[in-house]
Amino acid sequence: MADQVKLLDFWPSMFGMRVRVALALKCVPYEYVDEDLTNKSPLLLQMNPIHKKIPVLIHNGKPICESSIIVQYIDEFWKDKAPLFPTHPYDRAQARFWVDFIDKKLFDSGRKVWACKGEEQEEGKKEVIRILKQLEEVIGEKAYFGGECLGFVDIVLIGYYTWFYAYETIGNFSIESECPKIMSWVKRCLQNESVSKSLPDPKKVCDFVLQMKKKYGL
Amino acid sequence: MADQVKLLDFWPSMFGMRVRVALALKCVPYEYVDEDLTNKSPLLLQMNPIHKKIPVLIHNGKPICESSIIVQYIDEFWKDKAPLFPTHPYDRAQARFWVDFIDKKLFDSGRKVWACKGEEQEEGKKEVIRILKQLEEVIGEKAYFGGECLGFVDIVLIGYYTWFYAYETIGNFSIESECPKIMSWVKRCLQNESVSKSLPDPKKVCDFVLQMKKKYGL
Repeated sequence: MADQVKLLDFWPSMFGMRVRVALALKCVPYEYVDEDLTNKSPLLLQMNPIHKKIPVLIHNGKPICESSIIVQYIDEFWKDKAPLFPTHPYDRAQARFWVDFIDKKLFDSGRKVWACKGEEQEEGKKEVIRILKQLEEVIGEKAYFGGECLGFVDIVLIGYYTWFYAYETIGNFSIESECPKIMSWVKRCLQNESVSKSLPDPKKVCDFVLQMKKKYGL
Repeated sequence: MADQVKLLDFWPSMFGMRVRVALALKCVPYEYVDEDLTNKSPLLLQMNPIHKKIPVLIHNGKPICESSIIVQYIDEFWKDKAPLFPTHPYDRAQARFWVDFIDKKLFDSGRKVWACKGEEQEEGKKEVIRILKQLEEVIGEKAYFGGECLGFVDIVLIGYYTWFYAYETIGNFSIESECPKIMSWVKRCLQNESVSKSLPDPKKVCDFVLQMKKKYGL
């Protein structure tokens, strides 16, 4: 029997995007379910009772939660196509280190840019640039973080690109002029249809963020 | 040439303990370096310039940082002895999920118990118990989180046990009476010399915590 794969997600989520890109790279067909996060479905609450968050991958009825864990699962289960990890343990540890770095830093700093004002927003802008510059050093002269092919770090980071336009519009600054290497990397990633077809339009994300700011009085 | 393995650590760190237990289970000889965290060594700053934190494993001159990433590295590099991960991708994802849960929750809740007072301390005590009860459900009727053998989740959690006595003494509550299953699990883990010889005496940890409270006026 064919695998039954369902993804509980929310379209502007950079965490959900990781899973969408990984499934696309592995050519795994799946049912996409867009959740209303203000009124979460009983299925989401049942499948992720601990965190109650998207994304959740439901594979043959069993849930896998937490986006970077889901991406590793996808790589390990569908292991014959498009490997997302290098083979040497040291390189694998390095990939995990940078994913952990992105997870610990970028969401919170980005949030300061779009949800805060004044000093806190300025701090957020500086942090976003500092984080991206650090990542530019990691990419160095390589095409992707993973080397010649898209890998774990690329997949984890690329969803953030769809939020850059919102950060720039609301924060009134330019990521492209400060971090040209990251923007070249983004363009390289977008040449891959598994990436470009899995990501929403940054302008649509920006509209969503502006609506959210209005709705919550931020 | 034999592998050169050095661990930059600090003896009361539950994060360092994970690495010590993993190296012991794999029978990897290593040089232990206890860092003075108020005056970090140039080697630590050079080897972990991003976070500047212990533990750092230096393997043949190359650094691996972040404790749960180090444990995965140890498992992947020294793969022939004492595997720390189950083989099926779903079980591997579950182990990673619970490690992530422990990392996101237990340190901060424990800190509220030993470093805070009043309402915040009470909240910390409730959280610690809630987290451990949740983990008791995960362990169920198994001997270890990993099943019949010590695995990733066991190694990540066991260091916290050395802090329980400090939490109990400072918070004036009993983890043993609230979470008997966790304490049975602790006793089972301690029967393994790779665990018991890698962990400090909980009373020594408590003395250290009391000194720290005094020093920083907490």
